[in-house]
Amino acid sequence: MSAPKPVSAAVLVIGDEILSGRTKDKNIGYIAEYLGRIGVDLREARVVPDVEAEIVAALNALRARYDYVITTGGIGPTHDDITADAVARAFGVAIGEDPRAIAIMLERYAPADLTPARRRMARMPEGSELIDNPISRAPGFRIGNVFVLAGVPSVMQAMLDGAVKAMRTGAVMQIATIEAGGMPEGIYGDALGRIAEANPAVSIGSYPSFKDGRFMNQIVVRGREAEAVAAAKAEVEAMLDTIRGDGKPL
Amino acid sequence: MSAPKPVSAAVLVIGDEILSGRTKDKNIGYIAEYLGRIGVDLREARVVPDVEAEIVAALNALRARYDYVITTGGIGPTHDDITADAVARAFGVAIGEDPRAIAIMLERYAPADLTPARRRMARMPEGSELIDNPISRAPGFRIGNVFVLAGVPSVMQAMLDGAVKAMRTGAVMQIATIEAGGMPEGIYGDALGRIAEANPAVSIGSYPSFKDGRFMNQIVVRGREAEAVAAAKAEVEAMLDTIRGDGKPL
Repeated sequence: MSAPKPVSAAVLVIGDEILSGRTKDKNIGYIAEYLGRIGVDLREARVVPDVEAEIVAALNALRARYDYVITTGGIGPTHDDITADAVARAFGVAIGEDPRAIAIMLERYAPADLTPARRRMARMPEGSELIDNPISRAPGFRIGNVFVLAGVPSVMQAMLDGAVKAMRTGAVMQIATIEAGGMPEGIYGDALGRIAEANPAVSIGSYPSFKDGRFMNQIVVRGREAEAVAAAKAEVEAMLDTIRGDGKPL
Repeated sequence: MSAPKPVSAAVLVIGDEILSGRTKDKNIGYIAEYLGRIGVDLREARVVPDVEAEIVAALNALRARYDYVITTGGIGPTHDDITADAVARAFGVAIGEDPRAIAIMLERYAPADLTPARRRMARMPEGSELIDNPISRAPGFRIGNVFVLAGVPSVMQAMLDGAVKAMRTGAVMQIATIEAGGMPEGIYGDALGRIAEANPAVSIGSYPSFKDGRFMNQIVVRGREAEAVAAAKAEVEAMLDTIRGDGKPL
């Protein structure tokens, strides 16, 4: 049985409010974890402003390069919500009001409340499939390998549940986390580098965090073959034990 | 008196741990707010993995386009810390152990504790200026218009305080925030779009958040001229008051 092919993805966060610092992005981290659990590798993320040319350029760069692109933000009812237009421009297709989207929105809004602003949310690039929005109805959409989701995290998360159904998924990454505790990276770094070099089937990372005036470190081994991950993990643990034994770097 | 020229910046977050979702990035939001306060516009952010070619390509794209680039992550003592090498490669300069960095690190480490892993942190691209690290000593660096900082947020933040001293700063963005409360975007969206169009000296955004089952909205007016911001803010407030009066969209 051969392992399924890796599947790659990128996230494109669209919104002036992220770049001004007004809103702190929570979507990249959420999508990263979510995709990891279903065997899709997030390979890149970008944040761009509400400027059509910027969105088009970033989207075209990412969609050519990765299996999937997930965008967040800019699909609401106000003038600064320009994502659908930018996506249509990127794909070189027309954009117009989608009767399916209008029908869905009429489940929530009385016809008289379907203001021109709200009708903006029914504008879809030609050839889009709708993505369900169980929170506030106005749908996201998929066109080609691009999934266009809302920016508000709870809405984005609900849309993502629907969006991933259309994605091919790959082998889930196996992850082993080893607590190095307060042992400094500078003490185990050389030995860890040698282990990394000797185990090319896995990637090994060392991640410090700084709390209460001291560093605490974790070593993470990642790979698609469980045996390779387990073997590298055992080597790392043995290495840490040896250093703990005499306190000297290896 | 003419206003100072706008100054632009980009952030390049380097690290597999962000793209795997293991670590949630806190640096983009922090840097965005920080730069905003000193009149530097964050225009783009990217997250790339610990892969030299990816770092080089992203850095070269960003440094050519913006006044400054701030990178975070990948300057520690372990094998996966490859940022300094990638930056040297991007600039086409040599990299080597910097005696100034070694001297600084000897303030913290006894010579016997300066392991090869720790000495990695003293490797600087030719022509770099060091950036002080008051937390754990191992310095960041600046080369050209690129500032290379640590990934651990507390260390990054301390380095940023030093880094910005070398930056040209511009006029600080004036920001007015107007609470639309529970008034739906779809009710004020059309009128807000007309106000935005009539006030080209400012940018106006509408930002929903979703809490306890309902949307709460804020409208934000941003611009470099205080009078233009105040005028647009007054128009937005008058518009909201009118809608509140009869509950009808304008």
